Amino acid sequence: MGGPGQKPRFSPQSYPGRVFLVGAGPGDPDLLTIKAAKCLAAADAVVYDRLIAPEILKMAPANAERIYVGKMSGSHCVPQERISEILVRLAKDGGNIVRLKGGDPFVFGRGSEEAEFLTQNGIPYEVIPGITAATGCTAAARIPLTHRGLSTGVRFVTGHRRGNESLDLNWQSLADPDTTLVVYMGLANVDRITGKLIEAGLSAETPMAVIAEGTTPRQAILTGTLESMPKLVHQCGLKPPVLCVIGQVVAFSAALQPIIDSVTETNPPIEQVSYVG
Amino acid sequence: MGGPGQKPRFSPQSYPGRVFLVGAGPGDPDLLTIKAAKCLAAADAVVYDRLIAPEILKMAPANAERIYVGKMSGSHCVPQERISEILVRLAKDGGNIVRLKGGDPFVFGRGSEEAEFLTQNGIPYEVIPGITAATGCTAAARIPLTHRGLSTGVRFVTGHRRGNESLDLNWQSLADPDTTLVVYMGLANVDRITGKLIEAGLSAETPMAVIAEGTTPRQAILTGTLESMPKLVHQCGLKPPVLCVIGQVVAFSAALQPIIDSVTETNPPIEQVSYVG
Repeated sequence: MGGPGQKPRFSPQSYPGRVFLVGAGPGDPDLLTIKAAKCLAAADAVVYDRLIAPEILKMAPANAERIYVGKMSGSHCVPQERISEILVRLAKDGGNIVRLKGGDPFVFGRGSEEAEFLTQNGIPYEVIPGITAATGCTAAARIPLTHRGLSTGVRFVTGHRRGNESLDLNWQSLADPDTTLVVYMGLANVDRITGKLIEAGLSAETPMAVIAEGTTPRQAILTGTLESMPKLVHQCGLKPPVLCVIGQVVAFSAALQPIIDSVTETNPPIEQVSYVG
Repeated sequence: MGGPGQKPRFSPQSYPGRVFLVGAGPGDPDLLTIKAAKCLAAADAVVYDRLIAPEILKMAPANAERIYVGKMSGSHCVPQERISEILVRLAKDGGNIVRLKGGDPFVFGRGSEEAEFLTQNGIPYEVIPGITAATGCTAAARIPLTHRGLSTGVRFVTGHRRGNESLDLNWQSLADPDTTLVVYMGLANVDRITGKLIEAGLSAETPMAVIAEGTTPRQAILTGTLESMPKLVHQCGLKPPVLCVIGQVVAFSAALQPIIDSVTETNPPIEQVSYVG
């Protein structure tokens, strides 16, 4: 957990450094890809964000350097430029540098900014995709993103703006009853998002779900409508990370909830199955 | 590969059957999730589609029943209703039934129709998300789906219609220069898709990429513009599966292509790293 340079590196490297921009998925460590797990197992250093589960960090060798670049409680994030510089510096020392990001690196992950800086500095890198929250959290909640007759497609936007910037989206275009709308990081702006969509013509009765800490043991799912959701969210005091899903598929998902709530109630949990990759 | 019922089941099951709707990801077996690999390792039967790599099927025990429900060359797919019935019948015999689908089961995968039928028949099931082509193939091609200043969000639609149905999308809404547009299964309709988007006001110079067999050793990437792409696609004789990506991020991706083409040219390939889940 130390800052860069505080610990000796895992081993002197006989080959040039390279960076893996790795998606850590939505939360559940078992939702990492096999490739991501292999990268972690081979890591000499791991540069990681907030919300990465300790179980995931443990997939790296015990003596790999671990550098936290997420937000500290009550203070600011490490600036993006600084993170990119850390990656380049580590790679120049050699070895396998894993840049671990929640979800997928190329979906609202700013992975492209890090990739650009690595390219400019001649550092070889690879992008390992991750299960993005939109698919991971909805699978856990049994909300299909598309369904014949209800949704012809899906759209992801972010509901978050840095600093005091106002959330300014093309609401008219987003207010489309035939497309499932997924809003990442929309908690702080939930009043504005629901209000603007109704104003733009989407029915106030449009079904909406809010999934907090999806795929983790702390997962909470609220369902309601565009109109009812702001009050529900405030009453429940949900905390980030939160994913909002808006569209008819949310109501349809009631038809996908079996009476037996979990397959693990009657059978051995699949988590206990040993798997050797 | 036999039909249902042709082989004896893996073992008599002492517990009731359950179904795992598992996303097999975009092609590369290492892009399965750890959870998907565990489900396969515990499978008594695997019901699988076309385009599932043999390496992925080998993750199931050798004596697990394997049932192919994809399109046969020159003939039709197994109807969706029949697939759902097979799943219910297998689950009623007991054991772990894996329904293996390319990409993610809830993104254009018709997984929701199978989930609905399982629910109606009281069969417990779980949805295991997969890396959908939109994130898997673009990561391999180093095309970010979002990038500050270029794309505020991303949208997935399907370019395929069953039978002779005409592809009828809301082109006006899709022709949005600030959103990355990803079209699944758009090969047969590439002329119509590009033409309609230009007609709806998207610049003919909008960058476009077509990725065929993404993340596999046969991956091919074509880049051009909305205007140039139809001719390019026909000249190259690309075959499905194909993913189309439309937006400024495609041009930006040129800034993400390192001079060293692959991180594996200089270093030991990460595929050889052993990983025990």
